[in-house]
Amino acid sequence: MSVTFAKGFAASGVACGLKTSGKKDLAVVVNQGPLQLAAAVFTTNRCQANPILWSKEVIKDQKVSAIVLNSGGANCYTGPQGFQTTHATAEALANHLEVSSSDVLVCSTGLIGEQLDREKLLDGVKSAVDTLSHDGGVVASEAIMTTDSVAKRAEAESPSGWRIGGMAKGAGMLAPGLATMLVVITTDAVVGSAELDSALRAATRVSFDRLDSDGCMSTNDQVTLMASGASGIAAQLDEFQELLTQVCKELALKLLDDAEGASHNIHITVEGAASEDDAVEVARSVARNNLFKAAIYGNDPNWGRILAAVGTTKAEFDPYNIDVAINGVLISSNGQPAGDRGLIDLAPRKVEININLNVGVDFATVVTNDLTHEYVEENSAYSS
Amino acid sequence: MSVTFAKGFAASGVACGLKTSGKKDLAVVVNQGPLQLAAAVFTTNRCQANPILWSKEVIKDQKVSAIVLNSGGANCYTGPQGFQTTHATAEALANHLEVSSSDVLVCSTGLIGEQLDREKLLDGVKSAVDTLSHDGGVVASEAIMTTDSVAKRAEAESPSGWRIGGMAKGAGMLAPGLATMLVVITTDAVVGSAELDSALRAATRVSFDRLDSDGCMSTNDQVTLMASGASGIAAQLDEFQELLTQVCKELALKLLDDAEGASHNIHITVEGAASEDDAVEVARSVARNNLFKAAIYGNDPNWGRILAAVGTTKAEFDPYNIDVAINGVLISSNGQPAGDRGLIDLAPRKVEININLNVGVDFATVVTNDLTHEYVEENSAYSS
Repeated sequence: MSVTFAKGFAASGVACGLKTSGKKDLAVVVNQGPLQLAAAVFTTNRCQANPILWSKEVIKDQKVSAIVLNSGGANCYTGPQGFQTTHATAEALANHLEVSSSDVLVCSTGLIGEQLDREKLLDGVKSAVDTLSHDGGVVASEAIMTTDSVAKRAEAESPSGWRIGGMAKGAGMLAPGLATMLVVITTDAVVGSAELDSALRAATRVSFDRLDSDGCMSTNDQVTLMASGASGIAAQLDEFQELLTQVCKELALKLLDDAEGASHNIHITVEGAASEDDAVEVARSVARNNLFKAAIYGNDPNWGRILAAVGTTKAEFDPYNIDVAINGVLISSNGQPAGDRGLIDLAPRKVEININLNVGVDFATVVTNDLTHEYVEENSAYSS
Repeated sequence: MSVTFAKGFAASGVACGLKTSGKKDLAVVVNQGPLQLAAAVFTTNRCQANPILWSKEVIKDQKVSAIVLNSGGANCYTGPQGFQTTHATAEALANHLEVSSSDVLVCSTGLIGEQLDREKLLDGVKSAVDTLSHDGGVVASEAIMTTDSVAKRAEAESPSGWRIGGMAKGAGMLAPGLATMLVVITTDAVVGSAELDSALRAATRVSFDRLDSDGCMSTNDQVTLMASGASGIAAQLDEFQELLTQVCKELALKLLDDAEGASHNIHITVEGAASEDDAVEVARSVARNNLFKAAIYGNDPNWGRILAAVGTTKAEFDPYNIDVAINGVLISSNGQPAGDRGLIDLAPRKVEININLNVGVDFATVVTNDLTHEYVEENSAYSS
């Protein structure tokens, strides 16, 4: 049910011809209220696509009536013409829905530097409005796919009756190109605007922000949370935060799991850190180390590459008092080998790296994929 | 002639059995004076191999009689036993040469976490001393090779008569494993100790430090410069700096050119920057972007990936006023496409990326390789 699992939302997904394959490439999600609140987080890349520039303005008052998402083109570095296309898309949807275009978010994903076909896009908006449905969550989740092999959806329901639903596409080596991550989450809980914003930021910080498939940051990333209040039930904030975080983590892991070019999901947990920031910095450094990621592809427990990556960070630690375990086998400790690397089985898709810095009590996990032939293949053959 | 091109140096290279292939794996370079000055720069990785820990102490008084380098093992994360092996290596060479072990530098390269065979190593030191020669530069340069397909040497001579010679191994995707870069440069010029140190730092800053093949930093990198004063000629400092930098750049480009897994050498020049640091930060960000590097492998001028990498930096620029040219073709300007990507020929090995930030007059070039199937293959199959 995806984004229409929560009450007060209608959605649709259509093929408007942006994808040469003829597959669905345009999705719309409408918030029918009574609340029309939203919060969003955007890529921190300073080179931002036109839909990001547009949506950042729209979100300022936190009033959002609808969101329109297209695959088949990023609309980034397309100049004034590209921005006008984003604007026209929002206007078209707003006119059909009889709302203000300044309450319509726009997301795009695809190749940078190519103009979207505006006519096809606007025709698609009309078709999407014509097919809006309270069961449209599934088809919407399909329309935002690029090379995703499955659509990603997640849901959660509070015992008190309100719901959260979500859909996601992209991330890391999954998608060729810039691996844009587009996520839309809906809720029918009654939540205040400030709480909605802070809850989304807290949830993404420990979910999507810790998914680091290939270290490359897109120009188009956007995670949007819309609240309809249609359940009529005020959410307990603790519970809302918990279920929202759960939905975000579930979607993040589904992105990781569908990484087409990948043969391993690698969970890098750093513990014993002086701060959570230190733990994230160390885990991310390992997650971005090509030599380590290539070794995991080769089922090679090359722990030296883990420590070499740790050593490039500014985190607090004694380099000769770090414990490294791979899939539960302690393999290095006190600056020397500790275990039998022959005991480490890297055949399963899931790999667990545990790094104990032995200086504090903080911890964090970053998830990534291995570096594979298929990753190189997909990403060398995209636009040519 | 390599390190023996400069007068006052003897060198040798032998096979002592550290490499299972039976190839040469131990080199010695001896400074026969009258000066025995040296300077060195080391990896900034906080996880450092035993020879790095040792050599950092030896270099403190800048008096160095000899250097011994082994391939076939990094001697990193090998604990007290590993450190004792480094110490014993220096002691053995010192005893044979009748100098102090505290004037002997040690370098190692190979897999992390494996003990070196101390007996073979010490036997090798004796053989190396027995075969020291004023023509030994070539064989020494061969003995430090790992998967390098050719030995790397460079030389320069001042019209006033003093000389510089050098040898190098490793770097980036060239070498499997941690891509350790070991460099030894010799000179027979008469130079002061402070000048020697500052000249080496200035030269490495614009040569080896701007070679960023895969973003991975080794635990064993060391660049050493030894001065014998044997020419009897005091070098003009400007000229010394110029020729030293030239030798360092030549060796760095030879490392880049021999990258086994690579099919392109990519020169990323950032100009119009507000500072040299900004230019380096932007160039390095592009050099480390896997999506960009995979695209170049596929002969795909995917300039959007360049701008997306630029956008992740903190350098001063307006993201919508950056010029990007690939092999001389201006392909993006003013936040939109500028040229015909069909005009860009990526078939040659050398690729030139020019990025103009349009805010200042500073510039820098970082060189890297593409991300290829062969890189993944070599680095997934190293220790297993």
